[in-house]
Amino acid sequence: METVSENACFGGTQGVYTHRSEACHCDMTFGIFIPEEAQDGPVPLLWYLSGLTCTHENAMTKAGAQAWAADAGIALVFPDTSPRGEDVADDDVYDLGQGAGFYVDATQEPWTPHFQMESYIAEELPKVLMANFNLDEERQSISGHSMGGHGALTLAMKNLGRFRSVSAFAPICNPTASEWGKKQFSAYLGSDESLWAAHDATLLMKENGLDIPVLIDTGTKDQFLDLLMPEAFGHAALERREEITMRMQPGYDHSYFFISTFMEDHVAFHAEALYG
Amino acid sequence: METVSENACFGGTQGVYTHRSEACHCDMTFGIFIPEEAQDGPVPLLWYLSGLTCTHENAMTKAGAQAWAADAGIALVFPDTSPRGEDVADDDVYDLGQGAGFYVDATQEPWTPHFQMESYIAEELPKVLMANFNLDEERQSISGHSMGGHGALTLAMKNLGRFRSVSAFAPICNPTASEWGKKQFSAYLGSDESLWAAHDATLLMKENGLDIPVLIDTGTKDQFLDLLMPEAFGHAALERREEITMRMQPGYDHSYFFISTFMEDHVAFHAEALYG
Repeated sequence: METVSENACFGGTQGVYTHRSEACHCDMTFGIFIPEEAQDGPVPLLWYLSGLTCTHENAMTKAGAQAWAADAGIALVFPDTSPRGEDVADDDVYDLGQGAGFYVDATQEPWTPHFQMESYIAEELPKVLMANFNLDEERQSISGHSMGGHGALTLAMKNLGRFRSVSAFAPICNPTASEWGKKQFSAYLGSDESLWAAHDATLLMKENGLDIPVLIDTGTKDQFLDLLMPEAFGHAALERREEITMRMQPGYDHSYFFISTFMEDHVAFHAEALYG
Repeated sequence: METVSENACFGGTQGVYTHRSEACHCDMTFGIFIPEEAQDGPVPLLWYLSGLTCTHENAMTKAGAQAWAADAGIALVFPDTSPRGEDVADDDVYDLGQGAGFYVDATQEPWTPHFQMESYIAEELPKVLMANFNLDEERQSISGHSMGGHGALTLAMKNLGRFRSVSAFAPICNPTASEWGKKQFSAYLGSDESLWAAHDATLLMKENGLDIPVLIDTGTKDQFLDLLMPEAFGHAALERREEITMRMQPGYDHSYFFISTFMEDHVAFHAEALYG
């Protein structure tokens, strides 16, 4: 693991590191905020998965999350959203290829060799983080925005018991029924739609449910609301009589101004689960 | 004035607008955060002047200031740092020309036609803002970072009575004695160094003083500390027995991680002056 940068930040350190990924067969970069409390012992970890076109950097610089994480003594990790590099497959559109990994393991060419983001986020990166930082493996929660909200919800349901709470900002909730999903799942997973269900938060909720606290915020003026379909996930949870907090925020859109506005609530929500 | 974007943000609106500048003879863009309270009456205004290479956008997206301004019911304006455009003079280096206006009115070619940033910030933009937003002209304060800290300190001292408080993050404090200053003043103001003094915070403090609260934060690991020279400004204030709060923040550098860490303090400092 190589240090790209380390900056003092809210009493702790905002670092950026690069490491060779065995899952993605390329160098991967992530940001991690380590609060001051990590000097005294292992701290809880909140994962933040970013959306389409983002790198590790966007949320790290624009979401304002470190202020609240520092207050709560929680570490924050900001992974990249896909493998990257000149020899990594890509597409000219913004929502496929580099910057658009969708948190799945690709089984189709040309994506298979590098696009193994589910394995990377769920298996490989946790090991890297636990080995290199003073983190409490038993206290992890997960959040994300848009495609990253899809990642947070699906990974929480596919790894029951790993996370103590899950939240999302404007998540893609039903990708098998959305153009933000069908296109990418076709490319990465192939045309057999039955294989897509394992990566759809709404279908996973119907199938498996989720026994940890769930908080979802979506703006009423989100320009992508019809692609996100939060109501589909809400219906699925209600049918199971699962407890979820699903808020529609009046006037807010899909931007980081929306995310930063409600970040304090999300970190407080996770802190309650992590310290409860 | 043309609307570029408006995003709901912490209960208020983060807007970006473009207008024709008479001072700079080009279109100028600024960001402004208007808190919810402006719906009920005029709100105080905090100016935030950015540093070298920045546009209106950097602090608006990375400083985390809206969270605290919303709490305090204060508007925030984020001006650009120079005139811009294809027909505007520029230089290949990062610290001269576009993105590096230094908040002075240029008297030297090729800069004179557009680089009139002091007139723009001190005279023209206030009129634009007062005409278009529900702001209280009698309650203004000013802050800034690096080159923008220089701008905040010098404009506060050149316009005594206008601002109720001034603060700065890692300001350039003594530009007539620094390579961040000599180079730009030579280019914009010419070789007669006696004309530079009116734009040097340390010299202005010696000459005029400042009768409003002053808060300055600088990181002990700021990579540009020798160019900033906060001690020069401190000495000048001490010689006049002016009250200033001058903090050195251990371990912090010149980045937005430093700024965002202490933004809450700065907004609270200004709020006390604006509501006092």
